[in-house]
Amino acid sequence: MSPSAFFQELQTLLGDRMSSDLPVREAHGVGFSYHDCQPPDVVVFPQTTEEVVKTVTICAAYSIPIVPFGAGTSIEGHVLALKGGVCIDLRGMNQVLEVNPADMYVTVQAGVTRNQLDELLEGSGFFFPIGPGVNATLGGMASTRASGTNAVRYGTMKDNVLALTVVTVDGKIIKTGSKAKKSSAGYDLTRLFVGAEGTLGVITELTLKLHSEPETIYAAVCSFPTVEAAVSTAIKTIQKGVPIAKIELLDNVMMHAINRYSSLNYEEVPTLFLEFHGSVAEVERQVQKVEEYAYSFGASAFLWEKDEASRKRLWRARTDAAPAALAMRPGAKLMSTDVCVPISQLAKCIVDTQHDIEETKIIAPILGHVGDGNFHLTILIDSEDKAEFARAKALNERLVRRALAMGGTCTGEHGIGVGKLQYMVLEHGESLEVMRAIKQAIDPHNLMNPGKLLPEKKS
Amino acid sequence: MSPSAFFQELQTLLGDRMSSDLPVREAHGVGFSYHDCQPPDVVVFPQTTEEVVKTVTICAAYSIPIVPFGAGTSIEGHVLALKGGVCIDLRGMNQVLEVNPADMYVTVQAGVTRNQLDELLEGSGFFFPIGPGVNATLGGMASTRASGTNAVRYGTMKDNVLALTVVTVDGKIIKTGSKAKKSSAGYDLTRLFVGAEGTLGVITELTLKLHSEPETIYAAVCSFPTVEAAVSTAIKTIQKGVPIAKIELLDNVMMHAINRYSSLNYEEVPTLFLEFHGSVAEVERQVQKVEEYAYSFGASAFLWEKDEASRKRLWRARTDAAPAALAMRPGAKLMSTDVCVPISQLAKCIVDTQHDIEETKIIAPILGHVGDGNFHLTILIDSEDKAEFARAKALNERLVRRALAMGGTCTGEHGIGVGKLQYMVLEHGESLEVMRAIKQAIDPHNLMNPGKLLPEKKS
Repeated sequence: MSPSAFFQELQTLLGDRMSSDLPVREAHGVGFSYHDCQPPDVVVFPQTTEEVVKTVTICAAYSIPIVPFGAGTSIEGHVLALKGGVCIDLRGMNQVLEVNPADMYVTVQAGVTRNQLDELLEGSGFFFPIGPGVNATLGGMASTRASGTNAVRYGTMKDNVLALTVVTVDGKIIKTGSKAKKSSAGYDLTRLFVGAEGTLGVITELTLKLHSEPETIYAAVCSFPTVEAAVSTAIKTIQKGVPIAKIELLDNVMMHAINRYSSLNYEEVPTLFLEFHGSVAEVERQVQKVEEYAYSFGASAFLWEKDEASRKRLWRARTDAAPAALAMRPGAKLMSTDVCVPISQLAKCIVDTQHDIEETKIIAPILGHVGDGNFHLTILIDSEDKAEFARAKALNERLVRRALAMGGTCTGEHGIGVGKLQYMVLEHGESLEVMRAIKQAIDPHNLMNPGKLLPEKKS
Repeated sequence: MSPSAFFQELQTLLGDRMSSDLPVREAHGVGFSYHDCQPPDVVVFPQTTEEVVKTVTICAAYSIPIVPFGAGTSIEGHVLALKGGVCIDLRGMNQVLEVNPADMYVTVQAGVTRNQLDELLEGSGFFFPIGPGVNATLGGMASTRASGTNAVRYGTMKDNVLALTVVTVDGKIIKTGSKAKKSSAGYDLTRLFVGAEGTLGVITELTLKLHSEPETIYAAVCSFPTVEAAVSTAIKTIQKGVPIAKIELLDNVMMHAINRYSSLNYEEVPTLFLEFHGSVAEVERQVQKVEEYAYSFGASAFLWEKDEASRKRLWRARTDAAPAALAMRPGAKLMSTDVCVPISQLAKCIVDTQHDIEETKIIAPILGHVGDGNFHLTILIDSEDKAEFARAKALNERLVRRALAMGGTCTGEHGIGVGKLQYMVLEHGESLEVMRAIKQAIDPHNLMNPGKLLPEKKS
């Protein structure tokens, strides 16, 4: 069959909800990643699970690769069309299908974004806790097992997805999970598709757990003499079982960046941004403890942001960390990377990385979800400068090897995409073969987002 | 190759740590289930992961089925040797390999039991929250995705296993997960093996999350006029975000049973057993709220059990629910079953089930982890009476169909084993084919616990 027959079938299905214009294709070929753009051959815009089924069926019949696409905010190259093919842009699937306050869940199409969900839930008494630093789609967030600042208390996408609708390469609609809070009925397919980066199927609908809005929220900023002191405070907070909602580390470089970008005047030293959720009594008890730990490790000051406006300003500054970093070197590209280590290793991992950054002579502010042992390096690079790019990649590689040597993982929340492919063997060893066997079983012709998550086997 | 060659190879490996004596085989062929005993051909007692590898390799070479065995406390027939073969009794693998308070995890061999772990952690400031009603092994608890009374606050085994060591049928040692608290690096194999009931491999080691012991624990007993009133209190508690640690429903029949068995004199009406964890201030705030909800739904009394001794007596009575039920009909067998439904459907599901029990004229006390929408029926049967056995099975089936019709699952925490096999198609539809594909990929000759979890395909 000819490619034109393929295009014709797609067109019969979707009419003008497809495009092979170069700008459209290029807008779908890179995401927020530092990787080179690899545009798909065609971009389609389905509106229903049924349309995804038909698209996938047509692609499978012609052996055309399929790349699911959410908001295009992936930073590890998940959306690169390495082998061309069809990009399925799911943003048209942005319907909220059910809000169920009694059972505390919401069912959405995969293209609903987290901001859209936040707005929907405003005033409902419920919230959805997972928030990466960008306005990603919920389908994309599930696919990369995203987490963010609230994960220390509320878990990651893996903990907050109840059920999924997934289209597999054979055109079947798979429903995983149920509306029940727990189950022991068979293999946990929900947790298999969460984090599979579109390599096993296209997520088209998600049922997500809602959480009750806390009665009271306090936020605080706390300055420390050293990274060790800040991280030690985080460790003690976790070990003592304080159910802190956010505990974010920003190093001196990152503090400088956000002061500049957001016109703030925090001390430019290692800093924790904290948030506490609960009743007033609970929150005050938590605060009292964390303050005590912080001062015992040499914190200089606790700055309270109790009212909503100043709290929002604080977290807005945190959310703007990426543009703030970028403003330190206008025109630069961001090589954003993350690792996660056992919390006891975190201070050493960060300090060693800071020394490494210094030696590499690149600007790379550090930002961490330190309650989870997870931190980010935002490496600012001139992507035209090949030598610098190579130094940045080497820095990233040393970071990953450091984390793995400490019993950690090569990515806590960004995913593998193409950017971390080369570390999969080192991290997983023999279990990589089990992953490959699963991929082979579910997508035997390697059409679903090929080249992502699983490195090609060396023969 | 002859079977005697097979036995000889096993014997060379394990010496006298294997047995084909009938009493030993029979002790390994049924667990706590109501199903007929199906003994394996031989029982082996390895002490290391390496010995499991060699055992599995020998079995695979001779195409001999393998049934992993923990404490034999499964109630859905997970350990029945449906096709004979080798039972791998893991109780000799009972070493604690690492206790890491700094990173809040413990690594154990699969044969360590929860009581053993509890004793080990006594006084450490940490605890492991998952406790089924029996002294199961942690390997078994992972394999059935167990949970228990604390799950409403602390999650199930799926949420509390960080990493696993698994032996697959090809004799490989697979390490899943890491010591980091979260990861986005590849397929979530940990969550795939948790709940796989030994059908994908033999779990030999587990790294488990520890939780900080709460500063304060309060327990209470609260009597209600109706099941609806008790469940409504549970629903409101959850919806309002009260982080309750345990919220257990016992119906009037179950209350009668435990009063009799444990010489207590609670009111024999629908009752909640509650536990609150936190600082004194937090706990008192939680209590205040739940009391308010309970009285608003017509609760007659809140009975506090603040001191440790009375609290222990309370939960001992709860833990003894199974023998207490059994004492109502000496000589009977227990057909224990559980379902889990969206919490909004729970009251109706329980009340409809109570009517059904009445019509069936069988004693079947109800016990529920109601914060999760999960409840148990402990059906007391004379297994010699075929008509009664059939009525009990029909009651179980109607319960499962009721739960599924409500958007729930056929088992919240007991697992599929053989007892719930027949509902897998109804619950999972097309996704069952994905489960079959995974099984086929990882265990192509169906040697790992064959006949469990996945129903045979009708041709």
